[in-house]
Amino acid sequence: MTERVLTGDRVTGKLHLGHYVGSLQNRVALQDRYETFILLADVQALTTHFEKPDVIRTHLREIALDYLAVGIDPEKATLFVQSMIPEIAELTVFFSMLVTINTLRHNPTVKAESKADGLDEMTYGFLGYPVSQAADIAFCKATLVPVGEDQLPHLELARKIVRRFNELYKPVLAEPKPMVGDMPRLIGTDGSAKMSKSLGNAIELDCTSEELARKIKRAATDPARVHLGDRGHPDICPIYAYHRAFRAEGAPEIREGCERGTMGCSACKERLTKDLDLLVEPMRERRARYAAKPKEVDAMLAAGTERARGVARETMREVREAMSLDYFG
Amino acid sequence: MTERVLTGDRVTGKLHLGHYVGSLQNRVALQDRYETFILLADVQALTTHFEKPDVIRTHLREIALDYLAVGIDPEKATLFVQSMIPEIAELTVFFSMLVTINTLRHNPTVKAESKADGLDEMTYGFLGYPVSQAADIAFCKATLVPVGEDQLPHLELARKIVRRFNELYKPVLAEPKPMVGDMPRLIGTDGSAKMSKSLGNAIELDCTSEELARKIKRAATDPARVHLGDRGHPDICPIYAYHRAFRAEGAPEIREGCERGTMGCSACKERLTKDLDLLVEPMRERRARYAAKPKEVDAMLAAGTERARGVARETMREVREAMSLDYFG
Ligand code: SF4
Ligand code: SF4
Repeated sequence: MTERVLTGDRVTGKLHLGHYVGSLQNRVALQDRYETFILLADVQALTTHFEKPDVIRTHLREIALDYLAVGIDPEKATLFVQSMIPEIAELTVFFSMLVTINTLRHNPTVKAESKADGLDEMTYGFLGYPVSQAADIAFCKATLVPVGEDQLPHLELARKIVRRFNELYKPVLAEPKPMVGDMPRLIGTDGSAKMSKSLGNAIELDCTSEELARKIKRAATDPARVHLGDRGHPDICPIYAYHRAFRAEGAPEIREGCERGTMGCSACKERLTKDLDLLVEPMRERRARYAAKPKEVDAMLAAGTERARGVARETMREVREAMSLDYFG
Repeated sequence: MTERVLTGDRVTGKLHLGHYVGSLQNRVALQDRYETFILLADVQALTTHFEKPDVIRTHLREIALDYLAVGIDPEKATLFVQSMIPEIAELTVFFSMLVTINTLRHNPTVKAESKADGLDEMTYGFLGYPVSQAADIAFCKATLVPVGEDQLPHLELARKIVRRFNELYKPVLAEPKPMVGDMPRLIGTDGSAKMSKSLGNAIELDCTSEELARKIKRAATDPARVHLGDRGHPDICPIYAYHRAFRAEGAPEIREGCERGTMGCSACKERLTKDLDLLVEPMRERRARYAAKPKEVDAMLAAGTERARGVARETMREVREAMSLDYFG
């Protein structure tokens, strides 16, 4: 049996270099090796953005363009929209009988959130988002799910729900395996631990050459380096992190120049700007090509969604049969 | 605008005289005055019966026969199966963003349950069943919902969710009004407050003449009446309650005979048996007629469900548009 990969993004903002390093790059490789399903998670985005669904609407197309820009090929991967697969909602409802409140409140993400606001003020939908995530995975019988370490507890819960279902009814669902790759987390241009749009320290995938140059120029460096001769500490510098992430082969030289104080920060940044521009340029081109044909992008999403629905319908036929809910012939 | 009524039953057991008095009788009247939607709530039954879905499967057809037996007319009322309307699950997921855990845990039914087992051991689906109930009502834009007093908090929550949706997005959903009728609760044959299958004090709608006679013969009476001349207290006797519920015009005479000690309990019970048999006989006939044609009953349920789905599709089209989730033309 071919493994089927499920991956995707919450539709809450445009994608940036952190996403590229952490997942997109990997997906471009995965689509050649596995049957790959990529979820535009707009319903999951609603758990936090239900008050501004127009934000979701805008970002849906932007993210689709981001995917196409980095080289995800709709002929190879199935790109689909979560809210257009009613079977995911149906499976979420069935799965909700198989999980206790206790299990959900001990989920680390939920726990982190409830520290801030308390479980009581959380919406029912937010508490249940690992349940809906389990449905995202199960409806298409994904066997592999690329996850970061922090996502492991969610996947473990999905596995538990699938096992419970298979034991209680019939073994029709596939138990997903985590694919914990070396998907490094990219630090922000300000040096903080995570590149994130909301922290204002992100370099977006659709940035122009000028934006790219400006963001790198303004990025933090090792504060110990004031003059050229000062010895630097590349391990605390975002610029070095980017050199390593995007052109690993050049990194030892950068390290040496920085630590010895033979290379200036400006020169170091210029070099990075050039390298990144080389990386981003073909993305810009692909993006522009697709952005000029919005109807084609819509049709591509619609086709991927229809393909996913076919799989969904078949899974739900088996699910209903397993649960004895297949009443009429 | 014609009012649309939503009503229905959880598919967990056959219906009995308590249901007849408390709701079925009323529905037969409603179907002539309003557009009536009757829900076979199999998904809601799963919240408590997820471990034995075959029970639900069996009862689905039994309850459909009960409906037809009491005179619900599939030409007038729309009988439909909850699990076959995926739009209800979709709306449940959307609604789950609009309700906090706090609101749900203070729902009286949930509160009663959590006293026994604690909120933690409750399933996520059980905690959320008022949310799914709100979706049952909203998907078909029901404007009237017949409820008992104890169901009022659920309906209030459904109204709140609908209002929140309409304010946040667009006013596309109908705010349902409760229809608190005089739907008396029938006491059990053992004299306990509620007729209920699980208490073993119920007279089922499909009982034979012999079963009916036997159940009434064994039913509790006023224990003060040992000899014919003893003065009785009809208000504590289930037999009197049934006389009142099923042939109100004869009740004053029964009361008099009982209180004066001029009528014996056996005679009183025989009279009730005769009256009830007259009531139940045409139900038995209708039931037998339909039971002989299971394919026809299935087709009737399938047709009602298809009709309900038509309404559901149209509502979801509006819901998606209101939420800006209608991405492609
Ligand atoms: S030389 Fe490069 S790596 Fe070293 S501190 Fe300056 S920008 Fe950072
Ligand atoms: S006479 Fe009838 S109402 Fe009175 S106690 Fe006997 S059964 Fe009950």
